[in-house]
Amino acid sequence: MKKALILSTLALLISGQVAAKTWVLTDTESNTEQGNWHISSHQLNIKSSPFSIEQTVLHGGKQEGSKLLVIKSQNGLTITLIPTRGMDILHVEGFGVRMGWDSPVKEVVNPAYMNLESRNGLGWLEGFNEMMVRCGYEWTGHPGTADGQLYTLHGKAGNTPASKVEVSVSDSAPYTITVRGLLKESTFKKADLQTQTELQYVPGSSQFSIHDVLTNKGDYDHDYQIIYHSNFGQPILEEGAQFLAPIAQISPFNDYAKKGLSTWQTYAGPTKGFDEMVFNIAPLSGANHQTLAAVVNKAGNKGAAIHFNTTQLPVLTLWKNTDTLKQGYVTGIEPGTSYAYPVTIEREQKRVKQLAPGQSAHFDLTYQLLHSANDVNQIKQDIATIQGDQKVEEVSTPMAKE
Amino acid sequence: MKKALILSTLALLISGQVAAKTWVLTDTESNTEQGNWHISSHQLNIKSSPFSIEQTVLHGGKQEGSKLLVIKSQNGLTITLIPTRGMDILHVEGFGVRMGWDSPVKEVVNPAYMNLESRNGLGWLEGFNEMMVRCGYEWTGHPGTADGQLYTLHGKAGNTPASKVEVSVSDSAPYTITVRGLLKESTFKKADLQTQTELQYVPGSSQFSIHDVLTNKGDYDHDYQIIYHSNFGQPILEEGAQFLAPIAQISPFNDYAKKGLSTWQTYAGPTKGFDEMVFNIAPLSGANHQTLAAVVNKAGNKGAAIHFNTTQLPVLTLWKNTDTLKQGYVTGIEPGTSYAYPVTIEREQKRVKQLAPGQSAHFDLTYQLLHSANDVNQIKQDIATIQGDQKVEEVSTPMAKE
Amino acid sequence: MKKALILSTLALLISGQVAAKTWVLTDTESNTEQGNWHISSHQLNIKSSPFSIEQTVLHGGKQEGSKLLVIKSQNGLTITLIPTRGMDILHVEGFGVRMGWDSPVKEVVNPAYMNLESRNGLGWLEGFNEMMVRCGYEWTGHPGTADGQLYTLHGKAGNTPASKVEVSVSDSAPYTITVRGLLKESTFKKADLQTQTELQYVPGSSQFSIHDVLTNKGDYDHDYQIIYHSNFGQPILEEGAQFLAPIAQISPFNDYAKKGLSTWQTYAGPTKGFDEMVFNIAPLSGANHQTLAAVVNKAGNKGAAIHFNTTQLPVLTLWKNTDTLKQGYVTGIEPGTSYAYPVTIEREQKRVKQLAPGQSAHFDLTYQLLHSANDVNQIKQDIATIQGDQKVEEVSTPMAKE
Repeated sequence: MKKALILSTLALLISGQVAAKTWVLTDTESNTEQGNWHISSHQLNIKSSPFSIEQTVLHGGKQEGSKLLVIKSQNGLTITLIPTRGMDILHVEGFGVRMGWDSPVKEVVNPAYMNLESRNGLGWLEGFNEMMVRCGYEWTGHPGTADGQLYTLHGKAGNTPASKVEVSVSDSAPYTITVRGLLKESTFKKADLQTQTELQYVPGSSQFSIHDVLTNKGDYDHDYQIIYHSNFGQPILEEGAQFLAPIAQISPFNDYAKKGLSTWQTYAGPTKGFDEMVFNIAPLSGANHQTLAAVVNKAGNKGAAIHFNTTQLPVLTLWKNTDTLKQGYVTGIEPGTSYAYPVTIEREQKRVKQLAPGQSAHFDLTYQLLHSANDVNQIKQDIATIQGDQKVEEVSTPMAKE
Repeated sequence: MKKALILSTLALLISGQVAAKTWVLTDTESNTEQGNWHISSHQLNIKSSPFSIEQTVLHGGKQEGSKLLVIKSQNGLTITLIPTRGMDILHVEGFGVRMGWDSPVKEVVNPAYMNLESRNGLGWLEGFNEMMVRCGYEWTGHPGTADGQLYTLHGKAGNTPASKVEVSVSDSAPYTITVRGLLKESTFKKADLQTQTELQYVPGSSQFSIHDVLTNKGDYDHDYQIIYHSNFGQPILEEGAQFLAPIAQISPFNDYAKKGLSTWQTYAGPTKGFDEMVFNIAPLSGANHQTLAAVVNKAGNKGAAIHFNTTQLPVLTLWKNTDTLKQGYVTGIEPGTSYAYPVTIEREQKRVKQLAPGQSAHFDLTYQLLHSANDVNQIKQDIATIQGDQKVEEVSTPMAKE
Repeated sequence: MKKALILSTLALLISGQVAAKTWVLTDTESNTEQGNWHISSHQLNIKSSPFSIEQTVLHGGKQEGSKLLVIKSQNGLTITLIPTRGMDILHVEGFGVRMGWDSPVKEVVNPAYMNLESRNGLGWLEGFNEMMVRCGYEWTGHPGTADGQLYTLHGKAGNTPASKVEVSVSDSAPYTITVRGLLKESTFKKADLQTQTELQYVPGSSQFSIHDVLTNKGDYDHDYQIIYHSNFGQPILEEGAQFLAPIAQISPFNDYAKKGLSTWQTYAGPTKGFDEMVFNIAPLSGANHQTLAAVVNKAGNKGAAIHFNTTQLPVLTLWKNTDTLKQGYVTGIEPGTSYAYPVTIEREQKRVKQLAPGQSAHFDLTYQLLHSANDVNQIKQDIATIQGDQKVEEVSTPMAKE
């Protein structure tokens, strides 16, 4: 406790009278880096729902110098964040369910070893193994050339080491844990987009929330794009697993996905030669523009749901990569401002958003681990309520050609 | 003192009978790295003009592993060098004046996180925030394709971690401080250009000098180019600030700069939409080819002057980037062997220089912080003396089209 | 001994009844990194042939964070491996001979500072100074564009930090030392090629062996290519030095090499303007497809031989880079699955090999340091035996145009 207190700064966060203790793990401005670090509910004299929060510096291979920050709730979830990779979430486990997947990339690659420009803009694939990657914010989507430069796959935020990382624990029940990370996409003459990421978790619960605030720190209007690339494999994904969401319209991303349109609601098992089918979805939303999307297993007692807001994230990409287990058997549920087309197409089709100088965009998502038939049924019901009588419009023609 | 002595090697530098103590902070050959390191005049039993010299390893974000080396003179300047970025100078402060500027890039980016090839050769902009960057030596200038390869913006020296760094302090008054750094641009079959950089500072004074020696260590003639990209913002730069230099000829770099030609002598305040205007200058020089250029504030009591030699650095680029404060309100005074055109144009126009095997080129510059009307007036007088009766030739047509 | 034991895991390697002690120096899975590490025969109570094995973390310049692993046999060889660069071999010394060469690149470059895509795919040259580099396995050869992407010079394995490194010493005479390193070329959707490298050395001897096992961990057939780029300079290489190998056919790599075809058996001294001549060789082999190739000095009492298997490595590239000493006076003897042509040509000419899912390819080579006329004569005799009566077919036309 002593050391933790010495290392910490006590911050009184007045939000609904809630005070909290805060530890700064990394800060470029004060040149702070805690490296290996640990705190526990025991040390904090919290009895209700035991937890620990631990940062570990990784070694070896291309993960040399990477960091993991693990929130471990004894009765709840274990959430593994990657401060050195855009505060991405590597995986989440709890209640016998795992949200995450098995990529052939096993290491948590330090961006120092990445070359996003390699493989004609597909270098990002050399580090991709997260449950959630921020694909943005300067650009997102498939690589393409525009303005004489290569826009690499899925942007740079997910390969940006956080400039400031802090952990807070509320002083009173339910002892909410907050992890904040600052991502800077600052390039002279090009961009000064800064994202204050935030993850909040109440120990013992089966969900956590993301509250990201992207701010244009520059003096000029600036485009931005974001896709919350959220990925789920076994044990949720399996033959007969279902994709669930309230939908206005769904269409195939490209010609190859056309033949999967009619079966968009279910998943194949691991299928050699399947590669990937991608679908563009216009989601419906309910009160306050809130909506959700989920993937659930065949038995309907395990799953993952993402709750989001369609004013913030108006479109949804469904990525079905039901190829073999070793190839990466995974589905992506990806709320975003854009579909995954190259920036040229997203511009043409007016999905690239803009921030005025000083303006911020908020992105609030809740990730929910479903671990019972009850959980799944509740989600189904919520979706049915939003869907109401509206028929899902299945459009057979892709909205663009890459 | 003990530890410092243990860590140090005592070097007797016989140059005008001056002995000095030398500390090796980094050396790839002996595998030396001091990391965080500190020495002070107090430890050295020097009473005259107190100073300290400190190396700090930086952490967090893209500055993880970067190093700063700060010379702090109590009555003089604080000079911050970056051993991991070409011995560049981040900023210089003293006498109530700052030489340096405010880039949207706040971190001191470790080159491990840079990709100079990105953004079609403009990746360099992701790390640019220094008061002085060495743009060279294998090439310099704007990106362009030649010999089937991309020549990236401003070369690689400024993003090269020094292979050897040493600090010396003379044993007798005025206890001159010398910082040397070795930059290697060594690539099998391509180049073996090595630059022994040197910065000298006399504690208490308001100027410091650079003595760089570039040597072609290879067995073949090799081209080289260098621009000493020296950048100044507030408080020197402001509306009505003046650019001063003895000039034979000035011309706009491109069509956009044409409309700023007539007002080259003064600066606009922070101006939204200004972007940048660049001017190519043929400087005049005085005795021994010595010349100077300066930027001074409106009141004429603050400024920065650069003294250089036109046999070493025959051309001068004036970069007026008087855009908004957040965009980077800054002017560059850039003595060089080349203008900022791509290598193809610099070759055509015969400004690319060459070194025979074993041959060296010397670059000697003095940076002077001006902190009184007296200082400024002296500089004006020196410039007037060199300019004499010669009229500045203003050429309205750019000498090349990028 | 104590510390070493604490640090170590005791592994009983049952291979021909030989038990061994094993130390894990690096392991991404268990997040192990020993950093500076040392073991000696003295500590292990081994008396026969004294040795030490030492890992050192390097600092400064572009070698910051690189690691060397040095096997030092008092009566035999000193073998320097680079765990952070594909388990490459920097150099080997012993018996008054050095296997290795002098590149203008002196530092052991950390791949974090490399950009293989730079210089239009020749970025690899910024780190090339090894006696042996693994050029593979996803691709090898000269850069070229295929499938819309740049295949960079000589692939990525040689610039891949090992994911697992372990050192073993047998428990009984002759106390064989084994160094294993795991190289992962794992990219989502692209490749999952993993190579378990192994070097074995018997203390006191003048040779060591390589046993690499490349496995396709993916679920799809995957191409692979490999060239064991093995490089020798002074004191072996000199004017009048000889290249020796049993050969079915030799041809120039390109038009420039045509004029060197008739003198392929001997080397020029350091020759300004020579650049490089490359020859494609179809080697002959003897029993069990074993063959060898060697370079020996003029006096015939110093040399380096490589023993390999033509079912594993069917082709041989001879690289004569007898340019000046500073430019890099060196010859490459390069057994491989491919010649050094770009992948497009290698595909056309059917030299690109393939592994089925789960399938492995083995590469077994023995590097022998020759330090007496006896050694050299034995090699000559072995080559003569394999060559027999067969005439070397000298083909004057290159088999492809780059």
